[in-house]
Amino acid sequence: MTNEHLTLHTDKYQINMMYAHWVQGTHDEQAVFEVFFRKLPFGNGYAVFAGLERVVGYIRNIRFGDEEIAFLRTQEEGYAEAFLDALRAFRFTGRLDAVPEGTIVFPNEPLLRVTARIFEAQLIETAILNFVNYQTLIATKASRIKQVAGEDGLLEFGTRRAQEADAAVWGARAAYIAGFHATSNLRAGMLFGIPTKGTHAHAWVQGHDSEEEAFRQYAEVLPDQVTLLVDTYDTLRSGVPNAIRVGKLLEKQGKRMNGIRLDSGDLAYLSQEARRMLDEAGLPYVGIVASNDLDEDLIFSLKAQGAKIDVWGVGTQLITSAGQPSLGGVYKLAAREKDGEFVPVIKISGNPEKVTTPGRKDVYRIVNRETGIAEGDYVTLVEEGPMLTEEPLRLFDPVHHYIQKVIQRYDAVPLLAEIFADGELVYELPSLDDIRRYHREQLKLFWPQVLRKMNPAEYRVNLSETAWELKMALIEKYRT
Amino acid sequence: MTNEHLTLHTDKYQINMMYAHWVQGTHDEQAVFEVFFRKLPFGNGYAVFAGLERVVGYIRNIRFGDEEIAFLRTQEEGYAEAFLDALRAFRFTGRLDAVPEGTIVFPNEPLLRVTARIFEAQLIETAILNFVNYQTLIATKASRIKQVAGEDGLLEFGTRRAQEADAAVWGARAAYIAGFHATSNLRAGMLFGIPTKGTHAHAWVQGHDSEEEAFRQYAEVLPDQVTLLVDTYDTLRSGVPNAIRVGKLLEKQGKRMNGIRLDSGDLAYLSQEARRMLDEAGLPYVGIVASNDLDEDLIFSLKAQGAKIDVWGVGTQLITSAGQPSLGGVYKLAAREKDGEFVPVIKISGNPEKVTTPGRKDVYRIVNRETGIAEGDYVTLVEEGPMLTEEPLRLFDPVHHYIQKVIQRYDAVPLLAEIFADGELVYELPSLDDIRRYHREQLKLFWPQVLRKMNPAEYRVNLSETAWELKMALIEKYRT
Repeated sequence: MTNEHLTLHTDKYQINMMYAHWVQGTHDEQAVFEVFFRKLPFGNGYAVFAGLERVVGYIRNIRFGDEEIAFLRTQEEGYAEAFLDALRAFRFTGRLDAVPEGTIVFPNEPLLRVTARIFEAQLIETAILNFVNYQTLIATKASRIKQVAGEDGLLEFGTRRAQEADAAVWGARAAYIAGFHATSNLRAGMLFGIPTKGTHAHAWVQGHDSEEEAFRQYAEVLPDQVTLLVDTYDTLRSGVPNAIRVGKLLEKQGKRMNGIRLDSGDLAYLSQEARRMLDEAGLPYVGIVASNDLDEDLIFSLKAQGAKIDVWGVGTQLITSAGQPSLGGVYKLAAREKDGEFVPVIKISGNPEKVTTPGRKDVYRIVNRETGIAEGDYVTLVEEGPMLTEEPLRLFDPVHHYIQKVIQRYDAVPLLAEIFADGELVYELPSLDDIRRYHREQLKLFWPQVLRKMNPAEYRVNLSETAWELKMALIEKYRT
Repeated sequence: MTNEHLTLHTDKYQINMMYAHWVQGTHDEQAVFEVFFRKLPFGNGYAVFAGLERVVGYIRNIRFGDEEIAFLRTQEEGYAEAFLDALRAFRFTGRLDAVPEGTIVFPNEPLLRVTARIFEAQLIETAILNFVNYQTLIATKASRIKQVAGEDGLLEFGTRRAQEADAAVWGARAAYIAGFHATSNLRAGMLFGIPTKGTHAHAWVQGHDSEEEAFRQYAEVLPDQVTLLVDTYDTLRSGVPNAIRVGKLLEKQGKRMNGIRLDSGDLAYLSQEARRMLDEAGLPYVGIVASNDLDEDLIFSLKAQGAKIDVWGVGTQLITSAGQPSLGGVYKLAAREKDGEFVPVIKISGNPEKVTTPGRKDVYRIVNRETGIAEGDYVTLVEEGPMLTEEPLRLFDPVHHYIQKVIQRYDAVPLLAEIFADGELVYELPSLDDIRRYHREQLKLFWPQVLRKMNPAEYRVNLSETAWELKMALIEKYRT
């Protein structure tokens, strides 16, 4: 995936702020920005972090070439030529820390931390948020569907309703991380190695003089992959009987039909009837694929009704994250260089939830050694150094301070990994299948109550005493 | 905008159907597919068609290169090498008709019509739907916002929450078509010539020792464009007074501050107070920009409350089309070649709304010569030839047949234009500004009742008698 034209995939105010820093001579000062979100989507109990590989590719390919410079020269701001020269020389020379893709994450903890010249850190905000917000959102939606579907097959079918081409392929990738098995999008298959699947459309059936002929022809060409779409005319009176005829024909040739697909009507009833008809015809191995605006609620309901569906084709609702089509990840200044030192920075707001936690931060997952289960996440200031785990740990909620618990024996697993150091990639990007496996392992760290779809138990992100006191001190400072 | 890797931006089943047609020797038969949607989004009274330029670029660049062929060779279908050779030689050689971008469109009328070898028509379904669904959706959402905002400034600010990079730029383009004035996305500016705008972020203020210093520095660098974000600490007690100080300072230098931006809090109250303070300070020319999760309902409400906002920065809600993040445009077989003739094709469904109208169709806008207002759209079969307008026209609703009206003097304006003929582009793509102007003109054809945001009057799409009778005959045929 090339990123050749993504350098200007940024908001104009970033370039204007870079320009202003450059004019006032502060562009080389170091700044620390952190990415986090404030609220989980869909009322879910967790989110699945994704988008890092896209961010890495983007950062490595930032170049202001002739086209970009020529365009900026047309802008009414009238940027100085020496500034445009500084852009030509632009390379990312900073540090990036991030949570690995597939990690279960929660609100108000740093997911990425950029430590770089303000000149660089400002430029990359928009694209980082765009990439991380979308893939994390879709991975989280897909994970909800996966929680409901269990070990059933899950196919991503959303391209035609996706919000343009990038959403289709990066969304397919995010869904695969969260446990989907395949996508219909061939480009996603080519770019990322995701398995691809497909059946056929109604047009195939309409393009023949009879449904049976259409099925027979299709099965002849693709005998091992054939899944026949049975609802073009009448599912139970025409589609399933014709599919059965073709299935028996394949058997005579020593082959086995793969499945049938239901794409409309009452999927609970139709799947039960179709299952019965297939079984009675001696085709118990033929699977049933269902599609038609499915989401986690519909799948949950269909399973509760005893629908006989083996594979779920999920399109629109997943790829657009219908219900909540955006994740509100933000990129906030946490500290800035002053006289060679990092000074913590706060953003005050009339809305208490929007007051940021100042300072450069790390985040640890506190895993109880007795149960192997995560008790909460723990945010510290970088200056506190790595966490020591010899002493009992008092966890307290940063909003409702009286909610506390003490953990005696625990591991403190750092969530942030170093990705770029001095502008060099120092992180080995895992394969997509490794990310998918890591995500699956991650889920075992949590009680099922945290993972359930409805009214999940709250998993807390706690602040260290030091981070808490710094925040309170800065709030006090701005109040007076 | 290059489309180099978009050839496999398609569902796997398209390639499988192409393969099956190729094996059975029917791949050269002509087919007619039409794109339409069944339901307007957001309960709106109309939609704004967009996405054609993207479709044209895509079709012209379809090529199966080495990478695509090598990937297809890995697939479990085991495609024959001669088929892969046929893909290598693939070019679009068919015909495409489409409604021009910016046209006001309605459900159940053909927006695009593909007439091509089934081998070609099948491949391009997925990408066409992906592009047209997204841009039409965003243009329609933007048009709703424009209806409410009137002549106020409208800025597209959504990149960080867009569903990946393509959505950001094509969404910005769709918004511009529907009347937005600018985007914050520089890449969209570079690619499409859309004006770009930007202010500054909270980080700019936090990166200085005081808000006033931050404002002064920014104004010094960008005196003519400066719009100051006033809510980092306290909008009325700190932000606006500091902005006024800087505004007066600029006046002394013979310059004029552009505006201030409100990004949180009670926008109705804050804008009124800020307006009063600016006016009292002798800065009546300083505009007020508002942002913060705005959509057409919030803007409507703020205007009703007398908010003093001159420019609306609209982000997440527009670019993701929150509330309804997908348009259900479909691509349905209307006719297929048999023995050298086009045979109309129908798709039956248990859901009456999903039964397709068979046959190759044209669509006309019936404009009353007396009022200059459109009375309804009129769908005919291509075989009926161009509409004659000498006779009075009886319009009847295709679902509720008894709803009829007769138009005496009218023009019948064809909506479909020929875009590709024999694979050659025969349509001159209008400039983006021409599309935007055309859209603005289009709106004058409709009663305000059709255009209003809430409970709009229904504008009917009517079928010709011939088209209606063909549909009834085919339904009858499949019933027996």
